[in-house]
Amino acid sequence: MSTHRSIAALFQLDRGAAASLQTQLRTKIVHAIHQGVLRPGLKLPSSRALSRDLGVARNTVSLAYQELIASGHLEARQRSGVYVASDSMPRPVIADGGVGEPARSRESSAVMRHASDLVIAQTRFRPPPQWREMPYPFVEGLYDRTLFPTTDWREASRLALAVDQVASWSTDRGETDDELLIEQLRQKILPRRGITAAADEVLVTVGEQQALYLVFRLLSTERSVVAFEDPSEPEIRALAQLGDAQCRYLAVDDEGVQLDQDLSDVDLFYVSPCRQRPTGVSLSARRRAGLRKAMAQHDFLLLEDDFESDLSFLGGAEPALKADDPDGRIVYTASLSKVLAPGLRLGFLVGPPDFIRAARRLRDLMTRKPSPITQRTAGIFLSLGHYDAMLRRLDKVYENRMIALRDALNHYRPLSIVIPPVTGGTSYWVKGPDGLDSARLMREAMADGVLIEPVASYFADPQAHPNIFRLGVTSIAEPAIREGIQTLGRVMTRLAEAGDRFPDQNAGFDQPASAALDGDAIRRKLAGQRLSYQTVYGEPCTIDLHQDGSMTGRAGYAQEDRDQGRWWVDDGQWCRQWANWAYGEVGVFYVECERNQLFWLDETGRRVDRAIIVGPIPASENLAP
Amino acid sequence: MSTHRSIAALFQLDRGAAASLQTQLRTKIVHAIHQGVLRPGLKLPSSRALSRDLGVARNTVSLAYQELIASGHLEARQRSGVYVASDSMPRPVIADGGVGEPARSRESSAVMRHASDLVIAQTRFRPPPQWREMPYPFVEGLYDRTLFPTTDWREASRLALAVDQVASWSTDRGETDDELLIEQLRQKILPRRGITAAADEVLVTVGEQQALYLVFRLLSTERSVVAFEDPSEPEIRALAQLGDAQCRYLAVDDEGVQLDQDLSDVDLFYVSPCRQRPTGVSLSARRRAGLRKAMAQHDFLLLEDDFESDLSFLGGAEPALKADDPDGRIVYTASLSKVLAPGLRLGFLVGPPDFIRAARRLRDLMTRKPSPITQRTAGIFLSLGHYDAMLRRLDKVYENRMIALRDALNHYRPLSIVIPPVTGGTSYWVKGPDGLDSARLMREAMADGVLIEPVASYFADPQAHPNIFRLGVTSIAEPAIREGIQTLGRVMTRLAEAGDRFPDQNAGFDQPASAALDGDAIRRKLAGQRLSYQTVYGEPCTIDLHQDGSMTGRAGYAQEDRDQGRWWVDDGQWCRQWANWAYGEVGVFYVECERNQLFWLDETGRRVDRAIIVGPIPASENLAP
Repeated sequence: MSTHRSIAALFQLDRGAAASLQTQLRTKIVHAIHQGVLRPGLKLPSSRALSRDLGVARNTVSLAYQELIASGHLEARQRSGVYVASDSMPRPVIADGGVGEPARSRESSAVMRHASDLVIAQTRFRPPPQWREMPYPFVEGLYDRTLFPTTDWREASRLALAVDQVASWSTDRGETDDELLIEQLRQKILPRRGITAAADEVLVTVGEQQALYLVFRLLSTERSVVAFEDPSEPEIRALAQLGDAQCRYLAVDDEGVQLDQDLSDVDLFYVSPCRQRPTGVSLSARRRAGLRKAMAQHDFLLLEDDFESDLSFLGGAEPALKADDPDGRIVYTASLSKVLAPGLRLGFLVGPPDFIRAARRLRDLMTRKPSPITQRTAGIFLSLGHYDAMLRRLDKVYENRMIALRDALNHYRPLSIVIPPVTGGTSYWVKGPDGLDSARLMREAMADGVLIEPVASYFADPQAHPNIFRLGVTSIAEPAIREGIQTLGRVMTRLAEAGDRFPDQNAGFDQPASAALDGDAIRRKLAGQRLSYQTVYGEPCTIDLHQDGSMTGRAGYAQEDRDQGRWWVDDGQWCRQWANWAYGEVGVFYVECERNQLFWLDETGRRVDRAIIVGPIPASENLAP
Repeated sequence: MSTHRSIAALFQLDRGAAASLQTQLRTKIVHAIHQGVLRPGLKLPSSRALSRDLGVARNTVSLAYQELIASGHLEARQRSGVYVASDSMPRPVIADGGVGEPARSRESSAVMRHASDLVIAQTRFRPPPQWREMPYPFVEGLYDRTLFPTTDWREASRLALAVDQVASWSTDRGETDDELLIEQLRQKILPRRGITAAADEVLVTVGEQQALYLVFRLLSTERSVVAFEDPSEPEIRALAQLGDAQCRYLAVDDEGVQLDQDLSDVDLFYVSPCRQRPTGVSLSARRRAGLRKAMAQHDFLLLEDDFESDLSFLGGAEPALKADDPDGRIVYTASLSKVLAPGLRLGFLVGPPDFIRAARRLRDLMTRKPSPITQRTAGIFLSLGHYDAMLRRLDKVYENRMIALRDALNHYRPLSIVIPPVTGGTSYWVKGPDGLDSARLMREAMADGVLIEPVASYFADPQAHPNIFRLGVTSIAEPAIREGIQTLGRVMTRLAEAGDRFPDQNAGFDQPASAALDGDAIRRKLAGQRLSYQTVYGEPCTIDLHQDGSMTGRAGYAQEDRDQGRWWVDDGQWCRQWANWAYGEVGVFYVECERNQLFWLDETGRRVDRAIIVGPIPASENLAP
């Protein structure tokens, strides 16, 4: 085998890869030089020979050589050829050093034996590494790469690296943030939340997490009492615990955080009013007023986490609490959209100028300022309107996914009900039957490709709500949602049948079945009747079963969601088909009655849904469509 | 004025700007929508009319409109025109809110009155905001945008945003660093320093500062004794002080940190052996051995800051201490080149796996992981060999600048000598005469456009060395260096003449001048003589003044730097011209002698340089060139 053949063998290129063949070739040559495989002074095959051996255009090899000659890795010798440059390797210190796995002791290292006793528990839920391969990842906050605005971000990135831009973002080694980004935050992002802030009241941080870290480091000590919502993010509680602050936990209900505890000794109150983090509940107007009153009365500070306030698809949000802060008691943190944030790591902090100065100083010691390149790119991205466009797109995508999730939950009713009436979040908190172990459910569901998130770690007492889990839509494509919920329902049924008999939670569901009605009884009992039904997400629904086999349905508090369909009896079973609801599919059920309660049973005899028989359809409304 | 004319007036474009006219127009329209100047439903001028009013191609306007229609800011109505979209503004919360400066109290805010007593002094030298306009910025570490590898970084950035790359760097919300970057650090960066590390022994951080923060937070408490080099970076000492550790200061000499103190109670030893931070001195082999011995004897940990080890232009560096760490006692921090780092904010930490796990956890709480986009871009930048190419370029640029600085210092001798023999840094520490107040010198020099850096803040005792200052070359272009030092010399002379009489430091310089020799005496005294001279940077130099008016010079410890020239006497003054030295210019001096000491005087009679008259040139060497 000739030398150039063996060299060519090093450079097998992948035509399927996105990187061009020329880029791949350059990368591989540089790598081989670093590995010492191509040694200084070695003559490389001619571009003609190498292109033939690799089966690529000669120009591909020529251009790669040319680039590497320009960068000093190769050198061209006249009338001789191309060689690995004699100084191609920047000063290697060890001649014998490859990259290997050093011998490793099982014991803790000397470093760790000397480490301070700073213990930081691993509390955050971590999805299994293979989650991307799972068909139904109902996990909030995992990254959906299909939503990243690649083209627009690339444009902003290209502009930020224009020569005059480099000149302007690289002005000093100081801690001043990028002027364009600050201006865009002040003019585009903060006003939407009702906040007016001067430039010296805003600090850019490495993600929102750093903003929170700075606040806890500056505003809490081991003598402080910090109030937290319960549930809350364990990674945020950990910040207070890092400083040995005492934590106080206040339960969250469907109006947000409850304020009925004595708050007189509270120093700092962490609250996420727009969308309670993690449940998504909005703080009610009544509670907002109560919180303001308590803040004034007990002289504490508020840390307002305006998490995900950029999502607006389920209705207009209230202004931030920070929008009305005459005494300067509120410190506000947020980040750019979660679609950008994981890639960018940009958050921000709003507070009084003297606090921002202190926070800037601490940020400087922690990390210096966040990447000026990224700051400028984000500033340009905002100034071109790409951010608005992205939010509009996201709103639509998330809204559709949430509707799909709601419909699927309502259709398949996997032995569970949904808790609080969320507005605008990207997940549902689902309360399973008492006795359900959501950690076990997660493990079982994973085997069927469904990933759900147990929420125990969000609660101050991780044992308090073992039967609650979370279904998020940020990482699952809309078409997969229905099948995912169907699958999850089957897993729950399997668990129940395997002996995990869940006690009754929706009275009657779990009763031994009474005798199913026969076909005639069904017709007698239901024709011309009005049923009252409650969706799994808590909304009322009225279904009129007309004598002529037609059927009308009205759902929602304003009965705004309407549908029509047909019902009939076939072989002792009740059948129905809506135009749109329940995916427009035919449903076939056995039926049982107990007093005015109607139960639908699946083929196995399990009660899967129920309604109240209200009585005959009022004559005035009995208008078959 | 018609509507479209007044709209056009909003969009004045700047033909000189780097952003395309189309980009500018889009930015301005989006801005005007956000400002409420262009309200939803407003009809925009036709592209024909607007292009005419703006004096740009119609296509420029059409394309801008098209983009903004696609992004939802504008909408096209058939047969009618282009309008501001009815939902062009994402949900504004306040109708009346512009962006203004809120009323501000002079008192400290409620937030700061409640803040913990965490005091973080502002200690770092901050250049005045106008430093970029100054012609001679001799300040280390300020950003030289001309060195940023714009084109190469742009290529890496473009590749990192390719669709398949986005897919791979966006894999999870976890704390795992970018695989490509880790691999490149392990294969290209660390081996140069002699370090072999497994993937779980490396952590990517938000700049080196975060790496240092993590180490101090994890390895020091208020019960710890931390040893620092003196001088050292105040921003690093502050990290130990944040944790209330006791600091011990060890002086630095020309072998690096001195180890003669009792180190028995030291817990953590911060050291920057490759290039002492900030003086640039390398730790001698003797001291390295001493430090290892003390570490074993007193059972302390080492924090090795491998600051600027990537610069190699003045000779090969020793391997890192971490390269030989069998017991796992050394934690290592570094960053990518300072030419990239300020823009990127990427550093890294190497340590035992259990320590890296703890550091990763704390990093996660502080900031989560550094931007995956930036990590991937850096990984690609390294894999394409751009990083090597950049270092080679930088080495050359910095080397040339340092030579220019050395030559200028030696030529103009601004009443000062250079301290330690640095190898490979990008600055000289300059010790002025006793009595010089370098803070005052900085202020005076600024008036003449010269920026120098006082170094008081680097010393544990800021009063200890008031006459030392630093001259750095990272931010000043080579051609400006000579004139800058000449100017600085003039400022120092002015200070001296204004009454700041500096006492003698190079004995004889400041003596009252004895009578200058006349022309004949000069010839008699010097023809055929050998002079021994010392450069300002401490190297010996021999000058032979031949009888025939030729002159040979040999400088350096190995006499490796040689030059030739002519000398003559003119109107009672000694004149000389080197081929290369002293810029090849003619120098004209009065001359005085005291015993075997020769003094050169400038026109004002000030002694500017001196030499020892060794004696006649040995016959064997008396070979005029």
